[in-house]
Amino acid sequence: MQRAIVLVSGGMDSCVTASIAKDSGYELNFLHINYGQRTEKRELESFNKLSEFFKVRNKLVVDITYLKEIGGSSLTDFSIDVEKGEVDRKEIPSTYVPFRNGNIVSIAVSWAEVLKASRIFIGVVEEDGSGYPDCRKSFYDAFNSLLKVGLAYTDLRIETPLISISKGEIVKKGLELGAPFELTWSCYKMEDIACGECDSCLLRLKGFREAGILDPIPYIKR
Amino acid sequence: MQRAIVLVSGGMDSCVTASIAKDSGYELNFLHINYGQRTEKRELESFNKLSEFFKVRNKLVVDITYLKEIGGSSLTDFSIDVEKGEVDRKEIPSTYVPFRNGNIVSIAVSWAEVLKASRIFIGVVEEDGSGYPDCRKSFYDAFNSLLKVGLAYTDLRIETPLISISKGEIVKKGLELGAPFELTWSCYKMEDIACGECDSCLLRLKGFREAGILDPIPYIKR
Repeated sequence: MQRAIVLVSGGMDSCVTASIAKDSGYELNFLHINYGQRTEKRELESFNKLSEFFKVRNKLVVDITYLKEIGGSSLTDFSIDVEKGEVDRKEIPSTYVPFRNGNIVSIAVSWAEVLKASRIFIGVVEEDGSGYPDCRKSFYDAFNSLLKVGLAYTDLRIETPLISISKGEIVKKGLELGAPFELTWSCYKMEDIACGECDSCLLRLKGFREAGILDPIPYIKR
Repeated sequence: MQRAIVLVSGGMDSCVTASIAKDSGYELNFLHINYGQRTEKRELESFNKLSEFFKVRNKLVVDITYLKEIGGSSLTDFSIDVEKGEVDRKEIPSTYVPFRNGNIVSIAVSWAEVLKASRIFIGVVEEDGSGYPDCRKSFYDAFNSLLKVGLAYTDLRIETPLISISKGEIVKKGLELGAPFELTWSCYKMEDIACGECDSCLLRLKGFREAGILDPIPYIKR
């Protein structure tokens, strides 16, 4: 059985990604990154519930709150307000953490070398409208080229199964595979009831609306 | 004046790299990474002395001791002994931390985005015989390709001015530029007097011998 590391934030995308990795026959190892985001406590709770649900072999939580010290994002710098979301906004929003996924994937690669894993799964979505440069397919293609020259032990590849599909298709895929959406959390702003207004809530609600089903988590406004 | 971030461990290579960046006319910003190495206290002391010497604009120390938890290296896992060095050894030594430079460079990239820096300088040396995959030129070429697609704000490039030169040439270059070798520390094993036996000591001593000058730091055995 080949090993995979799945990056699990605790949101719906990482949950569906884990379901896809499981369905593809990999032994699951879950990695959660705390980069000092506002809703970390709630995300970690979802991560732990998902780890139990998927009966993972290993789980690891890594703290990279240095990104908060480096600053530059409203997700980690609490003096910057999180904008209300606009699904079709074109410029990069204030929630962008510079090269965040570069940092996160590098950690997963280090762990993969030690576990001798052959795949890293990450649930990034290019078309979700947020415009983060490290959520594009070209970024992961370039990272896979880097892995071809940068590793000692493993033949490792990053898989981004959601990168080119819509939020609605992600929800449908999750339903098909029995993904436990009720255990997930996506809101950037709140930890008890989702705000329904931030980028992340808007995208999630759009996905469930497109799939024609009701999102099982609670919202202030949906 | 264009900004550069220089990765400064506190060793002779990073010191000469800083001298080269300064000589090339960049405003200097120093980044030091604590990844839980044995000699971190001594390295940090050298980093602070070098920051003073070079009158840097900003300095930043980032803790990535999660690499210790991930394990797999004698530099961070204190239950593995550091081997005595062999300069011409071909296999990858136990001091290899998987994808360490991938993690380190990613942090530098995040900081560079915030500072709007245009260069990252790192003093890696391909020909030093240690065989680390993330010390090869091909790794930095691939990383520069990744930066072309992964950044939002900056036109950023990684510079590796020492990558294809010998330890002797590095010492000569440092002398020419007035690099303060007396402030640096390279030993992997000891913090007061360099052991003179680990990979890092052997390479450093070889460099000074090739350059025909005496290394100004103290050794148990040289």
